[in-house]
Amino acid sequence: MFYLVIDLLGVVSFAISGVLAALQKKLDIFGVFIIAFVTAVGGGTIRDILIGTEPVTWLQDNVYMYTIIITVIFALIFKEKLKYLRTSLFLFDTIGIGLYTLVGIEKGLAVELSAVMCVVLGTITACFGGVVRDILCNDIPVIFHREIYATACVVGAVAYFLLRSLPVSDDVVFIASILIVIAIRLLAVKFQLALPSIYGKNGK
Amino acid sequence: MFYLVIDLLGVVSFAISGVLAALQKKLDIFGVFIIAFVTAVGGGTIRDILIGTEPVTWLQDNVYMYTIIITVIFALIFKEKLKYLRTSLFLFDTIGIGLYTLVGIEKGLAVELSAVMCVVLGTITACFGGVVRDILCNDIPVIFHREIYATACVVGAVAYFLLRSLPVSDDVVFIASILIVIAIRLLAVKFQLALPSIYGKNGK
Amino acid sequence: MFYLVIDLLGVVSFAISGVLAALQKKLDIFGVFIIAFVTAVGGGTIRDILIGTEPVTWLQDNVYMYTIIITVIFALIFKEKLKYLRTSLFLFDTIGIGLYTLVGIEKGLAVELSAVMCVVLGTITACFGGVVRDILCNDIPVIFHREIYATACVVGAVAYFLLRSLPVSDDVVFIASILIVIAIRLLAVKFQLALPSIYGKNGK
Repeated sequence: MFYLVIDLLGVVSFAISGVLAALQKKLDIFGVFIIAFVTAVGGGTIRDILIGTEPVTWLQDNVYMYTIIITVIFALIFKEKLKYLRTSLFLFDTIGIGLYTLVGIEKGLAVELSAVMCVVLGTITACFGGVVRDILCNDIPVIFHREIYATACVVGAVAYFLLRSLPVSDDVVFIASILIVIAIRLLAVKFQLALPSIYGKNGK
Repeated sequence: MFYLVIDLLGVVSFAISGVLAALQKKLDIFGVFIIAFVTAVGGGTIRDILIGTEPVTWLQDNVYMYTIIITVIFALIFKEKLKYLRTSLFLFDTIGIGLYTLVGIEKGLAVELSAVMCVVLGTITACFGGVVRDILCNDIPVIFHREIYATACVVGAVAYFLLRSLPVSDDVVFIASILIVIAIRLLAVKFQLALPSIYGKNGK
Repeated sequence: MFYLVIDLLGVVSFAISGVLAALQKKLDIFGVFIIAFVTAVGGGTIRDILIGTEPVTWLQDNVYMYTIIITVIFALIFKEKLKYLRTSLFLFDTIGIGLYTLVGIEKGLAVELSAVMCVVLGTITACFGGVVRDILCNDIPVIFHREIYATACVVGAVAYFLLRSLPVSDDVVFIASILIVIAIRLLAVKFQLALPSIYGKNGK
């Protein structure tokens, strides 16, 4: 139950970010819904396909579809207001990647993947919905060239495996790792941190 | 047998639409073939992967490959004439989405998905070959921002589940649903129907 | 062991081509790594998903990830020099597609696909990492509109099945087929061979 609530909170966060991207591209209602849908479940779908959990999660439970439909309707009704909610939406998205990173790790552990691959799966779950969104919108995925985003997921995921070796309960480790992802992302944006540049000062 | 003929008719329809898209982008023969191929089998492939029917359908039966190769050869030989065949090609495509919607629904029922998810699978089968085509051609998928297309599939798919509760044979329901998809798509184009706009008159 | 070395040589070749593509798009370190990763394992991942070998190969063995990380680090350190290494990198890529074509065929045979579909799988394994790379970089995949590339894989793959009927050892057939792919690709580039044009002289 706790697990499902977490999952659906992430769905709502990402669906709204999908709606915003689709509105910028002037897509029609159907296009907006599809972009919201793939943003919300895309990362988890890629994860499920890579590990062979099929039918994929959202096909097995209508609740994901219903949650996204309701989110899209609300987002469209209040779309003028969404423009004034950039900060809130950024928070939604940040909580979303924290939650999804941990969901991905747990799914990886369930099929007995190595810790390294669980970190990868967590990051894919958190970030690749946005990658699919950007590809469908014909943009270079934003996470490939802007500030700390996936990096926060990687660090949080690594922290999860370090914290697991400490004598604390699983729930504490789970929550702490989510908070680490969120904290890194918030700090990165607040202080405009980016990955060290690999290009020279003159852009070469 | 009937099932296979339906399937191959859809393959031919979509492959031609793929050839046309690839020619516009000035791709070489190989590129044209790949775009034709993914347009024809892309929707079904995504469906198969989502539900876990692997190896995917076209890998298990060479007939799909052969049909597409022959279609591409014919389409390239008569490509000057294809330009004057816009209406016929539109009809091909329309029949294709009708057929594929129902094929997708049946595959979903076969793995015991809910009616809602069968509607989704039918729509994916019908429309996502075109989505992959557009992504490979570096365009925003046309179904996300133009007239009624996927909507016709959704309505036809929903009709299928409503008609099933009537005391008529399965074949009648199957054919009737296909015709509903086709009819909606034809009417939408004839009367230039689009989904209700979610943007203001000044484009905002 | 021999098999793994072949595989990793291909990984290195493709990862470097991914780094170069990502640098041209001015992606950050994370973006560069992701593009290198999908270029290196993308073809094999699509192959694994199509045939249902899941979890996909690279999730089951950390060596792919480590190889790519090390390759990316080296490529970034020596990136100024990479610019002067176009010829070497072209050779890397050429060896890579030869190797991967055969890896794909063997995987297809292992799940008892037809010879035709093994040829397709080999070509996908060799070429679709580059296709995913180009899609993520928001370009039309280069193999769809430039010289002989996938064609070399197809010919080498067909040769494999012809050579198998001769009274020579499996290893000889394997190596010979790889060399055929490499030879065709080298000759195509040296003599600027392209697939016969399907467009008129005035570009129509």
